[in-house]
Amino acid sequence: MAHITLPEGAPGIIGPMIAYPETRKHLSALAEVLLRGPSSLTPGEREMIAAYVSSGNECRFCRESHAAAARAHYGTQRNLVDQVLNDVGAASVSPKMKALLIIADKVRRDGRLVQAADVEQARAEGADDKAIHDTVLIAAAFCMFNRYVEGLGTWAPEDPAAYIESGIRLAEQGYVEYDLSKG
Amino acid sequence: MAHITLPEGAPGIIGPMIAYPETRKHLSALAEVLLRGPSSLTPGEREMIAAYVSSGNECRFCRESHAAAARAHYGTQRNLVDQVLNDVGAASVSPKMKALLIIADKVRRDGRLVQAADVEQARAEGADDKAIHDTVLIAAAFCMFNRYVEGLGTWAPEDPAAYIESGIRLAEQGYVEYDLSKG
Repeated sequence: MAHITLPEGAPGIIGPMIAYPETRKHLSALAEVLLRGPSSLTPGEREMIAAYVSSGNECRFCRESHAAAARAHYGTQRNLVDQVLNDVGAASVSPKMKALLIIADKVRRDGRLVQAADVEQARAEGADDKAIHDTVLIAAAFCMFNRYVEGLGTWAPEDPAAYIESGIRLAEQGYVEYDLSKG
Repeated sequence: MAHITLPEGAPGIIGPMIAYPETRKHLSALAEVLLRGPSSLTPGEREMIAAYVSSGNECRFCRESHAAAARAHYGTQRNLVDQVLNDVGAASVSPKMKALLIIADKVRRDGRLVQAADVEQARAEGADDKAIHDTVLIAAAFCMFNRYVEGLGTWAPEDPAAYIESGIRLAEQGYVEYDLSKG
């Protein structure tokens, strides 16, 4: 049971977002610009970073939601998402993405772990300032979203299939237009 | 030196906020509603939670900025802020605040650490759902802000006196009207 009264049946962040619309507004707007706004990273790459960070933080709701959104963006290459979540070292993603995922994981653990050499590696593989900025802020933001979801003791469906539909909706319609009543 | 090009001389989060206004807008709006919007917690109590979490994450810029804002809100009782940052167990804050700070520190470390008993304790001391929600989200949000500041390798003044003026400005004018050019 969640630690505060939340709408029955609403999983993960959906419950507190329905119950507290005044903060939802800004959380959704941040997710929208960060994951789908202008960037040198594709929305699929950014959703992959979000899923990877949420996986590191062991937040099932966020991991499954954003993995599903990333798969929807990646389409026929959706296997890459599972490769990254299962074993990032062996995943067939670009060297640039691997370098950015290393930065994201360091930010997740402690922002001070990011070294100049990590950033140089990402630049050498083609990442620009905006890609590095967005990677750091996505990783940081999911440390917030993961803690919001887990710190309130919300529930999350165990079956990854339960996230497919919302993943497609997030990929197609995004976060601001997302209809919370559809879960 | 910061890991990406940022405006010279702008400390902490100010640099990336000036350089990336499209995310700044939502980060500032979130801080405004979370720290100064309607709540059963005072703005001073919320700034104290923000400073305490930032202290736990060892993010100098956020700790000093929000400690200064909390002191400005607390006025003649500003010593309470330093008591909390130095030794929360011995601090003369209310039992409600102590219970909420315990929850905030658990959220900071890992949201899953928050137990029903922690929340019951806070309720027994007078915290309502909104206070618990806001405590969890403030702690979660500062895990984001702290990582954004540290993960980009920004610099921060060492002298706490350097934060007094901005603390007063944050307490009086808030986050949305905050003039970034004044540091």
